[in-house]
Amino acid sequence: MTTLYNDPAEFAEDQLLGFADLYADRLRAVPGGVVAHRGPEPIVAVVVGGGSGHYPAFAGLVGPGFASGAVVGNIFTSPSAAQVYSVAKAADQGRGVILTFGNYAGDVMNFGIAAERLRREGIDTRVVLVTDDVASSPVEEQRRGIAGDFTVFKALGAAAAAGAGIDEVERIGRAANAATRSFGVAFSGCTMPGATEPLFTVPHRHMGVGLGIHGEPGIRDEPLMPARDLARLLVDGILSARPEPSDAAPTRGTGASRVAAIVNGLGTTKYEELFLLWNEIRPLLDAAGLTPVEPEVGELVTSLDMGGCSLTLMWLDEELETTWRADAYAPGYRKQAAPLSELRPVDPGALDTAEAAAPEPSAAGAGLAPLVIAGLRELQRTLHENEAELGRIDAVAGDGDHGRGMVKGIDGAIRAVDALGDAGFGPGWVLRSAGRAWAADAGGTSGVLWGAGLEAAGDALTDTRERYDADAVSEAVGAFVDAILELGRAEIGDKTLVDAMVPFRDALNAGIEAGSGAARAWAAAAEVATDAARETAALTPKKGRARPLAEKSVGTPDAGATSFGLMVTALGALAAR
Amino acid sequence: MTTLYNDPAEFAEDQLLGFADLYADRLRAVPGGVVAHRGPEPIVAVVVGGGSGHYPAFAGLVGPGFASGAVVGNIFTSPSAAQVYSVAKAADQGRGVILTFGNYAGDVMNFGIAAERLRREGIDTRVVLVTDDVASSPVEEQRRGIAGDFTVFKALGAAAAAGAGIDEVERIGRAANAATRSFGVAFSGCTMPGATEPLFTVPHRHMGVGLGIHGEPGIRDEPLMPARDLARLLVDGILSARPEPSDAAPTRGTGASRVAAIVNGLGTTKYEELFLLWNEIRPLLDAAGLTPVEPEVGELVTSLDMGGCSLTLMWLDEELETTWRADAYAPGYRKQAAPLSELRPVDPGALDTAEAAAPEPSAAGAGLAPLVIAGLRELQRTLHENEAELGRIDAVAGDGDHGRGMVKGIDGAIRAVDALGDAGFGPGWVLRSAGRAWAADAGGTSGVLWGAGLEAAGDALTDTRERYDADAVSEAVGAFVDAILELGRAEIGDKTLVDAMVPFRDALNAGIEAGSGAARAWAAAAEVATDAARETAALTPKKGRARPLAEKSVGTPDAGATSFGLMVTALGALAAR
Repeated sequence: MTTLYNDPAEFAEDQLLGFADLYADRLRAVPGGVVAHRGPEPIVAVVVGGGSGHYPAFAGLVGPGFASGAVVGNIFTSPSAAQVYSVAKAADQGRGVILTFGNYAGDVMNFGIAAERLRREGIDTRVVLVTDDVASSPVEEQRRGIAGDFTVFKALGAAAAAGAGIDEVERIGRAANAATRSFGVAFSGCTMPGATEPLFTVPHRHMGVGLGIHGEPGIRDEPLMPARDLARLLVDGILSARPEPSDAAPTRGTGASRVAAIVNGLGTTKYEELFLLWNEIRPLLDAAGLTPVEPEVGELVTSLDMGGCSLTLMWLDEELETTWRADAYAPGYRKQAAPLSELRPVDPGALDTAEAAAPEPSAAGAGLAPLVIAGLRELQRTLHENEAELGRIDAVAGDGDHGRGMVKGIDGAIRAVDALGDAGFGPGWVLRSAGRAWAADAGGTSGVLWGAGLEAAGDALTDTRERYDADAVSEAVGAFVDAILELGRAEIGDKTLVDAMVPFRDALNAGIEAGSGAARAWAAAAEVATDAARETAALTPKKGRARPLAEKSVGTPDAGATSFGLMVTALGALAAR
Repeated sequence: MTTLYNDPAEFAEDQLLGFADLYADRLRAVPGGVVAHRGPEPIVAVVVGGGSGHYPAFAGLVGPGFASGAVVGNIFTSPSAAQVYSVAKAADQGRGVILTFGNYAGDVMNFGIAAERLRREGIDTRVVLVTDDVASSPVEEQRRGIAGDFTVFKALGAAAAAGAGIDEVERIGRAANAATRSFGVAFSGCTMPGATEPLFTVPHRHMGVGLGIHGEPGIRDEPLMPARDLARLLVDGILSARPEPSDAAPTRGTGASRVAAIVNGLGTTKYEELFLLWNEIRPLLDAAGLTPVEPEVGELVTSLDMGGCSLTLMWLDEELETTWRADAYAPGYRKQAAPLSELRPVDPGALDTAEAAAPEPSAAGAGLAPLVIAGLRELQRTLHENEAELGRIDAVAGDGDHGRGMVKGIDGAIRAVDALGDAGFGPGWVLRSAGRAWAADAGGTSGVLWGAGLEAAGDALTDTRERYDADAVSEAVGAFVDAILELGRAEIGDKTLVDAMVPFRDALNAGIEAGSGAARAWAAAAEVATDAARETAALTPKKGRARPLAEKSVGTPDAGATSFGLMVTALGALAAR
């Protein structure tokens, strides 16, 4: 809905004040609208206009290379003839005025009256109507103007900026309109400032095919469809009304296979959605033998907060292509070829994002690698066996996906290890490969933490030690713990795997220092971890931590701590065998 | 809601394909995101990123003068460390990499892991966090990154583009973040692709003050307020957390009175609304002694189709102002000082939109003018007397405002005539002045038509005839009728004033040709018009004309035709006296 205003009746004037303040470097407010600052040479004035609520149409299109002035009516309401007259008079530079606007009864009347008045004062004034909406009428001249406003205004503005005379500018504008076709759909209505209900509605989960930018009736309602089907609907709709050659535009439609293309969003429909739609439209144009030239995808002619989009094509001859590619620098549309001319794409061959090769392992390292892989397979077995139970525990306080995430992580790690093949590698390389794959496949925070922990353990272990003793195990576990503490930022008592992991590390180190040997120290530490995990059930989670439902988990052990306890226990049992 | 997609799970990838196709002139897709094409000289690579759904953040900010690469995660989800690594590796030009992103746990983890990996490969990698959202925490370092992403990324991109070394670029980026503050409000939630319900909601007719761009909790809910009150809330919110000088930015906050300013729209909130809000914010900044420098108002960091906006200020020293004003040419943000440098505003003194002076009337013209004015006063009396009845008739088929509109029109016309004063003028000038005022004040189609008709009648009558005879009356009425037929495009039988007006003209002309004299011919024609207006009750309005409820009006005379009949009758009676 439209939310920001003071007095709804003053919306159009108030927003124009802010707009004119922001863009005082290239335009100024005059009674009825805005006019562009002038360049060194006088040019034909192209004055665009219509109601407010369509930004960047119409005031946002005023600037070098585009319109010389915009008449700004109330929301969705034609400006008065007096407003048109006032803006045109201020925009005129002595070379005549083109008044151009979408074909709506109110605009036709008011711009028409103003044109008469200007002519009576000796200002050569021409009118160029935009009639691009193929859904609005089978008769070309009776069609409404929608996003095709943009191609026609730009052709006029570029021709004027290039210094053409008024006959020439008018001729190019008419040719642009004759070569332009649009077809659109609406997903939802829009709300006028001050209103609590939308101006019109579209049936739920439906779209209005051919519905106008002020809610004018369309052709029919259809259920919402996937983007690829909508792309076909829009392309087919335009191609079925493809322009025919005419006296005004002798080459249009036939022969010309190059087209200017616009995918226009009406307001609520997001740029990402429009990019996605373009990805579906592009191959359909290719298949129809049409080459899109510098396509524009975005909000160019909007309708307040209406949902929907349209496709516009302008069939190009050489002259229209020149106007379409020309530079322009308006508040709502800026195009400059120059900043791009010196750029060079990165050579795909030079995009070396591959990993470095595995370092040559020491004999001890090569010997340890198969044991590490066996350990990972044991983890895989343990996690698959406990997936459902871990999910059940997690569901009390979280979204219940802990078991699933851990299984996805270890499965990815095992795939990565299997992919290492038979080339020589050490235990550090195995753990790094496993950790990266775990993080990529598991998703979620615990996946990232486990991946980072395994990678850090591998880095600490290295592949080239002369011997891998209890100290090496201690260092690897220490690196694992440090990585998770640093990245996860959780502390003991937060009800996370940290509650089991830190006591495990401390018990392991104490056992090793006491001379128990790595395997015995590990098994004892695993018991400590399991107990600690169980004890998380008694903890009240700290306030402000990541889990929104954590207060419900009092009385339930933490799933992350539980899975940690299960895994170190399984590895301890493996080492004992 | 989010409407355009194929498989919701593939939304982020699909939209990126369309995006990369559209902007192949300045960037290319790589695994994990996009990288900019390279200029002639290698520069420090500034790699931005985060989840999708925030366009133009983050991919839309890649291009000359801005980011060298963007990592693109799933919607509202951190990219993986592998994605960050891949994009940074491709963006690196041998001068090091800056990773920069908003302060969210997932991003901190994944970008952090990637930074470690890049450093291990010998790539000098720095991390610059954005922490601008003053609503998210009292502690600077713990704040979230929202629209301040834009000022910090731009400072980094501009410094890198200027050729600075990595230490310098990092220092400027940190200074930019230390000098940036944002505060925002949300009006409505957003809908993920494939979802039928919004991700979160804001209570009806309320706004979430300080609510985050993914729906993170804010400070409080408040009822919607006028734009001027919201402006104060936002400005006060930022000023209360104004930056203090620090080691990283010794001059920030104090002393510096120049600020970069952004009014950012979250998605559904329209540009016009943001301009209107800027018009309220600007004077508050002035009052606080802050000079906004090249403010940006628009969609820079969005949240799918969320409604809401935020204000961002970056306190400028000379160095930061240079980066803020620098050119940039990314898909979602283009700024080039050059096209504006040669422009000059139109001199307000030269904006002569005043009317030409009244021509000197002939003796006959000067004599007729008072009678024309008397006629207009008679119309005023008649319309006031019948306002309610005309409204009642109009309400059957239309919106019931015909009587009100006609009264507003004639009152405006009389005011204009009164304003002419005592200077000499003829009947043509009186009618032209009255017509223009009528069109401006009445509003609606009938106001424009009556205004144009009177103006045309005045033009036909002129002020300088030697005598004003019956033929002059016929010519004036003919011009009145022609103007309305041409502008209104209605035909006889459409249930409009045309149904009474055309028979009136024809009867008048027939009477004058038969030698009845103007007054008698007029009175007879007025009876014809009144009968014709009454007969419109029997007409079925033609399909497809302007009146949406016209079918209900069968059996009711047309209000426009009725008022025409009333007026010509009153003028006839006046002439007979």
